Amino acid sequence: MINLNALALRFTHIPENTANTALWILNQSLLPLKEEWLLLRTVSEMIGAIKTLKVRGAPLIGVAAALSLGQSATKGASHVQLIDEARALRAARPTAVNLMLCMDRMMAGIASGITPEELLGIAVHLFNEDVSLCARIAENGAELIGNGDHILTHCNTGGLATAGSGTALGVIRKANEQGKTIHVYVDETRPLLQGARLTTWELKKLGIPYTLITDNMAAHLMRLRKVQKIIVGCDRIAANGDFANKIGTYGLAVMARYHRMPFYVAGPYTTMDWACINGDRIPIEQRNASEVSGLEGVFGRVEWAAPDSPVYNPAFDVTPAELVSRWILDCGVFAGNDFQAGRVRQSMPQSMLQT
Amino acid sequence: MINLNALALRFTHIPENTANTALWILNQSLLPLKEEWLLLRTVSEMIGAIKTLKVRGAPLIGVAAALSLGQSATKGASHVQLIDEARALRAARPTAVNLMLCMDRMMAGIASGITPEELLGIAVHLFNEDVSLCARIAENGAELIGNGDHILTHCNTGGLATAGSGTALGVIRKANEQGKTIHVYVDETRPLLQGARLTTWELKKLGIPYTLITDNMAAHLMRLRKVQKIIVGCDRIAANGDFANKIGTYGLAVMARYHRMPFYVAGPYTTMDWACINGDRIPIEQRNASEVSGLEGVFGRVEWAAPDSPVYNPAFDVTPAELVSRWILDCGVFAGNDFQAGRVRQSMPQSMLQT
Repeated sequence: MINLNALALRFTHIPENTANTALWILNQSLLPLKEEWLLLRTVSEMIGAIKTLKVRGAPLIGVAAALSLGQSATKGASHVQLIDEARALRAARPTAVNLMLCMDRMMAGIASGITPEELLGIAVHLFNEDVSLCARIAENGAELIGNGDHILTHCNTGGLATAGSGTALGVIRKANEQGKTIHVYVDETRPLLQGARLTTWELKKLGIPYTLITDNMAAHLMRLRKVQKIIVGCDRIAANGDFANKIGTYGLAVMARYHRMPFYVAGPYTTMDWACINGDRIPIEQRNASEVSGLEGVFGRVEWAAPDSPVYNPAFDVTPAELVSRWILDCGVFAGNDFQAGRVRQSMPQSMLQT
Repeated sequence: MINLNALALRFTHIPENTANTALWILNQSLLPLKEEWLLLRTVSEMIGAIKTLKVRGAPLIGVAAALSLGQSATKGASHVQLIDEARALRAARPTAVNLMLCMDRMMAGIASGITPEELLGIAVHLFNEDVSLCARIAENGAELIGNGDHILTHCNTGGLATAGSGTALGVIRKANEQGKTIHVYVDETRPLLQGARLTTWELKKLGIPYTLITDNMAAHLMRLRKVQKIIVGCDRIAANGDFANKIGTYGLAVMARYHRMPFYVAGPYTTMDWACINGDRIPIEQRNASEVSGLEGVFGRVEWAAPDSPVYNPAFDVTPAELVSRWILDCGVFAGNDFQAGRVRQSMPQSMLQT
């Protein structure tokens, strides 16, 4: 029997009784006001959940998509159908590369003619791998966190965003577990408020002291030296170290540079895209205007801009490597010249380097 | 008969019939979804309206407070009561200096024993002066705007914020009237969304093309060179050119510097505080946590953060003079060395230099 439990995903499967296979996701679009678990029965339901951010977080999206595809296989989907479903899942969101990597691994499995249970096994492996990648990122990153640090973070990069303890937030959590006194400033992260809604919820559960701010307060905090370090997650790292992450990340990196503050990015090696030579090649997802002109939540739809206001809504931005102090990966902590000298690439699993 | 009309304030007064004196304000906390005019009968109602941002914008607050005090005088308030009311108005908000300057002028009038009608006359003069200051700021600033410019602005600095055509937004409006093709990127300006609610409403009325963004998208726009210039207003300028403005302004200045983009601040000379030697001396108003953990509007109260999340909510930040390309004042356009050389001070009305 397979039984996987993450903060925002649950999966159970009994090989002899595939009718009882169940893939549940915590509907993150309703947090923290409502904890609603959704049973996703089909790949098309999973695609819908990914597009509407009910499932979110670059690592979790990849794992959830893989499990959904594995479930489809064990329920009897044909070879052709599985290929189509993998392609559709792969295209559900364009920026995070983890989803693409997970789908490529699943597609390789499908192509090699393995059994449905074996295909599901790959998905389960991806889940378990993400848990251990998170643990190693946390170990590596916690070295950079000092006792008494005030740390600024953006978006949500914790247990909700991964199968494990998170990336940037996992580092913070680990430092806290090590007994370091830390305090977190949480960017609310407009437009979808992942910081205000999700990161506060996680930090409160973990008992880690935090303070919520609007995104535009970060520079003021830095000027007053109320924060000493910035740590963020990532959705895709290019071969030169440039990376895409939630909109607003790049501005933080610029501010950190001006204030001579360390700016760290944390992620698993599955976020590396060696085929992408630099950040300018990372496609940036544009989302609906309604996310900016107002807000949707458990409270319904709220609109505040002048009606029909034109809106620009990139979900991500790109931070050039030159603004990053350290890349905190599962396979080590790296500086910019480690990318140039090929040391990051060398530390990667060999399977990654075939792209 | 006195009849004053601003975009967000109306005042009528017949000396022989003070019962018919009427001071109306457009409730800016409900815009753009509801245009509600409020009749403010007493100074204490005006103080409430200022504290709850129903009246807002540094220049408009000063003018509105003066008219409210003048109205109180013509309705028969005693000398002692007027002094108390002027002090209470002066303390309604701590950061913008225009309010304090207006109240100091009114108090000087009260102290000199002028008649109620004469006191009201000072308030009317302050209103009319603000209209002409706006016109001069617009003329001066429009010189810096080129045909085809994409301009980023923050908060609301238009007709809603002043008795006239505005400060930063007045410059944009003037450039548009001069026939220049311009496009405005509007920061939504969390937490109170003055950009999303008020600036879009004004630009739409004026027919000036604009695009609404969340505050954390500004750096990304600069990196893509989708914007060429930043222009903001101010709530107080210190003697060395440092200035306080809506939270988020300082971050924009840092980003502008990194991207080598002009960063302009526009305001009337009534925003200068010569007694304040630098920005560190400007008191920063801290506002309620509920503004950050959620939102209030015509739609009611909406809450999205984890319950009881600690919040930091400074309403303003300070931008050091070194990050400012030009100060656009009614009395001229100045560079940083104009402050150092005393040229800004020399251009001020003599009455201002006694502080």
